[in-house]
Amino acid sequence: LSTTTISSLGEHALIARITARLAMPPWVVVGPGDDAAVVEPERGTLDVLKTDAQIEGVHFDRRFVPADAIGFRALAVNLSDLAAMGARPRTAMLSLALPDDLDVSVLDGLLNGLLALAERHRVALVGGNITRSPGPMMIDVMATGSVRRRDLLRRSGARPGDEVYVTGTVGDGAAGLHLLRVDAAAAGPCVDRYLRPEPRVKIGAMLGRNRAATSCIDLSDGLADGLRQLATASGRGMAVDADALPISAGARAVLTLDEAIAGGDDYELLFTVRPSHRGRLREVRRASGDVPMTKIGVVTREPGVVLKVEGSTRALPAGFEHFRGTV
Amino acid sequence: LSTTTISSLGEHALIARITARLAMPPWVVVGPGDDAAVVEPERGTLDVLKTDAQIEGVHFDRRFVPADAIGFRALAVNLSDLAAMGARPRTAMLSLALPDDLDVSVLDGLLNGLLALAERHRVALVGGNITRSPGPMMIDVMATGSVRRRDLLRRSGARPGDEVYVTGTVGDGAAGLHLLRVDAAAAGPCVDRYLRPEPRVKIGAMLGRNRAATSCIDLSDGLADGLRQLATASGRGMAVDADALPISAGARAVLTLDEAIAGGDDYELLFTVRPSHRGRLREVRRASGDVPMTKIGVVTREPGVVLKVEGSTRALPAGFEHFRGTV
Repeated sequence: LSTTTISSLGEHALIARITARLAMPPWVVVGPGDDAAVVEPERGTLDVLKTDAQIEGVHFDRRFVPADAIGFRALAVNLSDLAAMGARPRTAMLSLALPDDLDVSVLDGLLNGLLALAERHRVALVGGNITRSPGPMMIDVMATGSVRRRDLLRRSGARPGDEVYVTGTVGDGAAGLHLLRVDAAAAGPCVDRYLRPEPRVKIGAMLGRNRAATSCIDLSDGLADGLRQLATASGRGMAVDADALPISAGARAVLTLDEAIAGGDDYELLFTVRPSHRGRLREVRRASGDVPMTKIGVVTREPGVVLKVEGSTRALPAGFEHFRGTV
Repeated sequence: LSTTTISSLGEHALIARITARLAMPPWVVVGPGDDAAVVEPERGTLDVLKTDAQIEGVHFDRRFVPADAIGFRALAVNLSDLAAMGARPRTAMLSLALPDDLDVSVLDGLLNGLLALAERHRVALVGGNITRSPGPMMIDVMATGSVRRRDLLRRSGARPGDEVYVTGTVGDGAAGLHLLRVDAAAAGPCVDRYLRPEPRVKIGAMLGRNRAATSCIDLSDGLADGLRQLATASGRGMAVDADALPISAGARAVLTLDEAIAGGDDYELLFTVRPSHRGRLREVRRASGDVPMTKIGVVTREPGVVLKVEGSTRALPAGFEHFRGTV
């Protein structure tokens, strides 16, 4: 076991430790080691840009999130956003602020998780920076992707009568977090989903390519927030059927309905589909290896998002906001 | 005067506060407000990508760095790296982690500085994220630029006999930091240079475009580090003449020679030029409004960087590394 701290190595040695693990595809003209990275754009596509940070004590708790999961999640949250635009991911950059006394094995573990996910989706880690932090660990990833203009998915295209779909299940991330807070050694499907969420990279790109969806968002901040964002951006409303929500048995065991709807960290895609395009959606589902895509409601002409529960209708629970909530 | 804290506003309100100040150029297809930003690439160019973070207590001290300077510097350090590649900057993304009790006027000030510099160089702030920090303030900027392949400046092209040049002056940043540490109300040219360093955006792009330079780097981590990086990347050495170094009177007043050479935060460009291309360099200088470009040494066949001081030769002082140094 290593007992070397980050601060004993120095910035240049840490960067060398990271870059030694990287392989660059041919379209990376300049990788790590110069003032900036240089990549060839993909012909005929637009550049899609995203950055999202994970802060210790806000987005993760090191008492129950292992180093590899910190790295995995840091990239996953960004790839999920690219997927929600219909984009294929290409590059990532990594900005790290680490406490002086951190053991270098934590850095290695973090890279294990991040690079495993990057490899799966052929994302090249082309650059970044590393510095010490006088406080929490901070890991900020910037990801780029490409999408053809006509394949671009926006939040704003939902129209009255469109059907509202969600991939996978809802609430597993929040349930996994709850279980880990109670017992740091908890295990199971919800815990896995919380620690290593699979961004819906392939589904996002396919939804864009075959024009199956009129609008799309990822569920990083929970279903309630996602529904509100799609409705607001489209200038419409949504009516969601509580009975239709794909909440797993594991999530139902520890969350109320409202907690599952408000909870974040699912990284599923929420999107709207014209009824006449259900066939396109079936193609996407088949090509994705039959990832569940559940119809949970419809787009309404009137603004506002309502939840139908046992015949009556009520407002959605509040979503998750970082300055009001904590891990 | 505002007495509203960040935490009382919430994430969505803070994002709205930022985006209300932004204007998007026509090549931004999707700006802030969707899952990711989307931009049209510039035809016939490569994408240049950079991210660099500023951490309170490591890169800046809020006791003497005002909010607008924090924002200005956060973008400047990234634009400086793009310039060192010969690239023109296009977009920036902003990743902020802010203490709960921070007054919202600090966020406003930070944006004042960042957006002033962005506007000067026509950089579009296309996205980002904001979260609370349980520790120091963190501001991470990701910047993208574009460069034609044949205009690209690398660190690795220096050849024996090339002349070594530096723009502007060396040591002002370190001197300004020293002065502010002694007296938080200090003022003057060195303090200005430390607080609001001007990235050499135009010069970098011109050095690339007219093929004046064989290698280039920016001096974020000091002249000593820059010289070593260029020499190492090129597999050559450098002999630098101490008498030729453009150290300002202000910097000489408070720094030793070695401190000026080792000190960071200058954000000047260090580059090498073939003697037969001095004419191209004169053109760049003229077009840049006569920014000083001083010949400080030559590239040598033998590896290693040496400093000539009063007829004798010695090694360079060590450079700045984040895990060994502090603000």
